[in-house]
Amino acid sequence: MNGFASAAQGGPSFIASDTLHNAAVQLLQARGVRLEQLAELVLFLQQDYIPGLLMPDCLESILHVLAKREVQNALLTGIQLDLFAEQGMLFFPLQPVVQADESLYGVDETLALSILNLYGSIAFTNYGYLDKLKIGILAWLNDKSTGMCHTFLDDLAGALAAAASSRLAHRYRHMLEEQSRYNR
Amino acid sequence: MNGFASAAQGGPSFIASDTLHNAAVQLLQARGVRLEQLAELVLFLQQDYIPGLLMPDCLESILHVLAKREVQNALLTGIQLDLFAEQGMLFFPLQPVVQADESLYGVDETLALSILNLYGSIAFTNYGYLDKLKIGILAWLNDKSTGMCHTFLDDLAGALAAAASSRLAHRYRHMLEEQSRYNR
Amino acid sequence: MNGFASAAQGGPSFIASDTLHNAAVQLLQARGVRLEQLAELVLFLQQDYIPGLLMPDCLESILHVLAKREVQNALLTGIQLDLFAEQGMLFFPLQPVVQADESLYGVDETLALSILNLYGSIAFTNYGYLDKLKIGILAWLNDKSTGMCHTFLDDLAGALAAAASSRLAHRYRHMLEEQSRYNR
Amino acid sequence: MNGFASAAQGGPSFIASDTLHNAAVQLLQARGVRLEQLAELVLFLQQDYIPGLLMPDCLESILHVLAKREVQNALLTGIQLDLFAEQGMLFFPLQPVVQADESLYGVDETLALSILNLYGSIAFTNYGYLDKLKIGILAWLNDKSTGMCHTFLDDLAGALAAAASSRLAHRYRHMLEEQSRYNR
Repeated sequence: MNGFASAAQGGPSFIASDTLHNAAVQLLQARGVRLEQLAELVLFLQQDYIPGLLMPDCLESILHVLAKREVQNALLTGIQLDLFAEQGMLFFPLQPVVQADESLYGVDETLALSILNLYGSIAFTNYGYLDKLKIGILAWLNDKSTGMCHTFLDDLAGALAAAASSRLAHRYRHMLEEQSRYNR
Repeated sequence: MNGFASAAQGGPSFIASDTLHNAAVQLLQARGVRLEQLAELVLFLQQDYIPGLLMPDCLESILHVLAKREVQNALLTGIQLDLFAEQGMLFFPLQPVVQADESLYGVDETLALSILNLYGSIAFTNYGYLDKLKIGILAWLNDKSTGMCHTFLDDLAGALAAAASSRLAHRYRHMLEEQSRYNR
Repeated sequence: MNGFASAAQGGPSFIASDTLHNAAVQLLQARGVRLEQLAELVLFLQQDYIPGLLMPDCLESILHVLAKREVQNALLTGIQLDLFAEQGMLFFPLQPVVQADESLYGVDETLALSILNLYGSIAFTNYGYLDKLKIGILAWLNDKSTGMCHTFLDDLAGALAAAASSRLAHRYRHMLEEQSRYNR
Repeated sequence: MNGFASAAQGGPSFIASDTLHNAAVQLLQARGVRLEQLAELVLFLQQDYIPGLLMPDCLESILHVLAKREVQNALLTGIQLDLFAEQGMLFFPLQPVVQADESLYGVDETLALSILNLYGSIAFTNYGYLDKLKIGILAWLNDKSTGMCHTFLDDLAGALAAAASSRLAHRYRHMLEEQSRYNR
């Protein structure tokens, strides 16, 4: 990449990717979502399609998804809005709409879609399926009795799991191709 | 709309919306999908959320979705590709990919998404749910033993039902608003 | 729609569409965007394609776009985030990212896309074109010297204009079809 | 990835990624689009933002985009439809709609969006800009006097260039971050 040689001077200031990455992981945990719980959703979605799939594979895939800048930005923004809603700080009429997680609000799903889009169209069906089943950590995120507001995070958590599943499906296919090449 | 007054001269030739609409409806039926079967999927998706929902409501919503030009174009294009695949007329390597409805193909879901997008982000979860359940007409479209190729139509049929469901949800909300206005 | 007859009892409380609509229009004006300025962008985009197009047609189309609930929600959410960023209230590292309108942030464009999607794929090219040209009100929204933060609103304003343009293009086509029917 | 250990037996037959990749590159050239011409569009879009950017960087980025399976599938499908339209083989009324590259058709832009989505939302504005300017190879693809039909390929070529531009922008940012780390 010699074409980029002269880029260093000037010193633009900006937020580094690992700063965003660390913030995203810490916010997930602070809001009650452990990465293992996301990996469990991935295992649930993929174990019938990928023989021998184990939790470490699923966790690694979640980490890869979390390494993308667009994913980090969607997570940070959604969790920030959840926090403001929890504290009653959004202006009217946005506050009651977000607080009640109104089914027609749609911006939460829009942020989730921005994560899914990065992993191709097959990520969408896994997302929709998880959204209807609401299993595991998604059930907890949808439990209004906790007093927390997870209008955005429940959709974003599902999108992380669906994206990581799609990524595994693509990688598994790639591995099958490599194996069939050697076995010829 | 007096601003459009001078448009008539010149006479551009083009395909009229009702020509596209009729073609879309006829192709659906020719490929084995009756509108009532799509309406049944809508009823399944919405009957728990909309009290007193009946089949005519669902059928009317399907017809409204089918009246959109982008929907007609997606349907015609997808069914055309299914037909070519069925007749073995696609070039290699597209032919085996479409014929096998490969899970990583993705263009079928992409056309479905172009329908869903028109009805807002809440259409996506219904679509993903239908795609996993594969009930009713979707089960038949996914049955490879018929000798037909429905790689595109199974996704497009699910998208039509999910879009019509989303439209009903929006309209039901609107009706509740009107009622609460009168009841004040 | 007799199927919906039993919906009135129970009285769910929710935010009415016209409350959201009024809030969206007032927030636009409070943030320095008059609807006429959005209509001017529509006129710029469509005047070469629709003979005799006038400002009232463009303004009416903007109003139709603003009547959609998903549009209202996207606008309210984006303007709320702009306000928090302006007041320095977002958590780190989201605050400097949004405040600087970082080119790789992406959530602002994501909200804009959720508006464009409702009007079909042809809305996208008008949006991208406006985003590069930055004319009219879009130039003002991108002027950092005002001390205001319009990270979201500059994209949302462009999306409103692009969506209204796409809507006019569809309606113009429909009118041509009707005329050619009468002229046969 | 030991979790995937037992995958080899069974021998599913499928189309390998490099088969799709080679087909995509060959079809591009057979339809009159050289990769260098796509790289020129990337250089045009990015040279003001990335100091010292050279053609080999742009060409490498185009190749990376072409290595994605969803990109290959979109390209193959679009070019196949262009070929059928050129030969007059699509059924009515799809044939005249595609042949005329009707502005409201939309499926061509939909396939382009499926490529852009993989590279985040910032790819969209570059795409819309290229679509309006129609420079370089895009001008040739839009020239109806060649007797060829490029309804899909003109949009897909623009999407390839816009996606490769977005990828370079992300990588350039990453490189700046690495440099600022060393310079501390």
